[in-house]
Amino acid sequence: MFTLQKSTPNGRRGTLTTAHGVLETPFFLPVATAGAMKGLTFDELLSIGAEVLLSNTYHLHLHPGEDTVDQAGGLHSFIHWNKPILTDSGGFQVFSLRQISKLSDAGVEFRDHRSGAPHFIGPVEAMQIQHKLGADIIMCFDECPPSTAPRAKQIEAVDRTIRWAKTCKETHEKLKAERKTNPLLFGIVQGGLEPDLRKKCAEELIAIGFDGYAVGGLAVGESESEMFDVLKLVCPILPEDKPRYLMGVGDLNQQKQGIAYGIDMFDCVAAMREARHGTLWLSNGEKLRILRAEHKNDHSPIDANSPSPLSRDHLKSYLHHLMRLGERYGETIACMQNMAVTLRAMKETRESL
Amino acid sequence: MFTLQKSTPNGRRGTLTTAHGVLETPFFLPVATAGAMKGLTFDELLSIGAEVLLSNTYHLHLHPGEDTVDQAGGLHSFIHWNKPILTDSGGFQVFSLRQISKLSDAGVEFRDHRSGAPHFIGPVEAMQIQHKLGADIIMCFDECPPSTAPRAKQIEAVDRTIRWAKTCKETHEKLKAERKTNPLLFGIVQGGLEPDLRKKCAEELIAIGFDGYAVGGLAVGESESEMFDVLKLVCPILPEDKPRYLMGVGDLNQQKQGIAYGIDMFDCVAAMREARHGTLWLSNGEKLRILRAEHKNDHSPIDANSPSPLSRDHLKSYLHHLMRLGERYGETIACMQNMAVTLRAMKETRESL
Repeated sequence: MFTLQKSTPNGRRGTLTTAHGVLETPFFLPVATAGAMKGLTFDELLSIGAEVLLSNTYHLHLHPGEDTVDQAGGLHSFIHWNKPILTDSGGFQVFSLRQISKLSDAGVEFRDHRSGAPHFIGPVEAMQIQHKLGADIIMCFDECPPSTAPRAKQIEAVDRTIRWAKTCKETHEKLKAERKTNPLLFGIVQGGLEPDLRKKCAEELIAIGFDGYAVGGLAVGESESEMFDVLKLVCPILPEDKPRYLMGVGDLNQQKQGIAYGIDMFDCVAAMREARHGTLWLSNGEKLRILRAEHKNDHSPIDANSPSPLSRDHLKSYLHHLMRLGERYGETIACMQNMAVTLRAMKETRESL
Repeated sequence: MFTLQKSTPNGRRGTLTTAHGVLETPFFLPVATAGAMKGLTFDELLSIGAEVLLSNTYHLHLHPGEDTVDQAGGLHSFIHWNKPILTDSGGFQVFSLRQISKLSDAGVEFRDHRSGAPHFIGPVEAMQIQHKLGADIIMCFDECPPSTAPRAKQIEAVDRTIRWAKTCKETHEKLKAERKTNPLLFGIVQGGLEPDLRKKCAEELIAIGFDGYAVGGLAVGESESEMFDVLKLVCPILPEDKPRYLMGVGDLNQQKQGIAYGIDMFDCVAAMREARHGTLWLSNGEKLRILRAEHKNDHSPIDANSPSPLSRDHLKSYLHHLMRLGERYGETIACMQNMAVTLRAMKETRESL
């Protein structure tokens, strides 16, 4: 259940109550793709203030499979994480990451990128899988073309997303009754950069009725102002008393602006991916490319004002050395830095509202 | 300075005072090859009771180079580790891991395995490098053939090891005076499986006089009883009031027996390497091969009695999943397990003496 506490010109402040605790909004979701973070342990993540995780249905469905997770007592038990978890629907991955064998109104046929084995996910399967995974917040299965895809493609995707959303809702209600659990189900607004399609999609999803609404298909090639135009259009349509989730936006300035437009939730892998490739997000807003030769003998702290203790304690020269050699501890230091900076920025924005 | 507190039929108990604190003996040295552990952070290592680190001179000489470390204020500052550090001499690596271009009484010419650049380390260089690295305990540069090499080779290696030990001692004394530091220097007893050569090497090193004595060239192909025969011969020759270091022995039962023969210090990478390859050392002494299919749906704790909290909290099925996918968190869990079991075994043996 979402409670809006405050609505200001700079954003909304509220709480989202889940089966595993109450989240203060706005919040950021670190991504534990297959049930673990790449580069950080859960203890490290908790030490820098993480309150919630996102895991990917696509990856968990392939390995270890939702039945294994279900047998273990659900994702919280399986991965030993006692705070809230959100799972995505798998839609983004099957549409963007993998070769699709066949797309129909029933869903998507695709192949496991490792074994080549055939798989099928549609709205019914996405609900069944996510209920077995047992997350606190689950997502509708949607068709997500790039924001820059042609209008005809967007029309088709919006129509299918709406039809699938109805099926998701029905299946979800059935599974809630059967399993006696109560995860929150979010709808996903598609429509690319077409205002009328975004509007239509939002309105139809609201008519079906969800526990929250995501804005999907952004941050995938369009300009920043095009992205914000979508938020300016969609957020005012969405119900005040439901949380709003902007998927896949990790840039800290864009998050801050998104919050001002009325967004309550964000996720992104960029902070961690950039860290693993040696780009550190400093607490002063600058980026530090630690692999550059100029840092070989720079014995100053990585970031003296960092929210990550590792970046206060360790030297640039040491991190340069570790990352040049591909030593994992270098990745840990870098990931801690970028995630800690991300989580602190969100906290500061939240507390400023 | 070493203080022998107790000598029992099961082993010796004592303390070794270094510039960065007092170590209780016997102890185990986790290996942070290039200044970081593979698979664990320093915080994780400290949380399971590590008191001391070993770093490799060979690796640090190549990257980042001892001058960078020296400029940073030495290894303790460079890697931010405030407890004792031991560096090896680089001898083992140049003889066993790399192609040697040329071996003479002055030292060894070899090539960087990455860049192909030529390098030279002899007894003088090994002391200069280690003094710049700034460890608390440093090792003589020795020639280390496999224990199973022919007698003629062992004779040559022992003679050179003794000559080099004299040069190391002289260079070390000069550097101590110049740098106004006081690291402990250990000699290394070579001689393969030849009793007379081991005896000769030990006696000559004792005549030169070191702060401690290592037994090298073991655990590299000989049988367990051949290894223990060397300890039975060498330990009684070594001075009672100096610490004794058995290099490269990681097996927990062999460590326990080594302690009974009078050994005070051990190091080995086996615990961590086996962990990274999916073999867990359980607290009951058994080994768990977590990648086996039988663990896919085994939702019991990895090791309910483990000294590592991660192994008490996490399920076998989860670790199986992570390691099958090559997720780094799996390595962390496995490395924590094997290192925690190693450190606890050492502590229990120490406290039983």
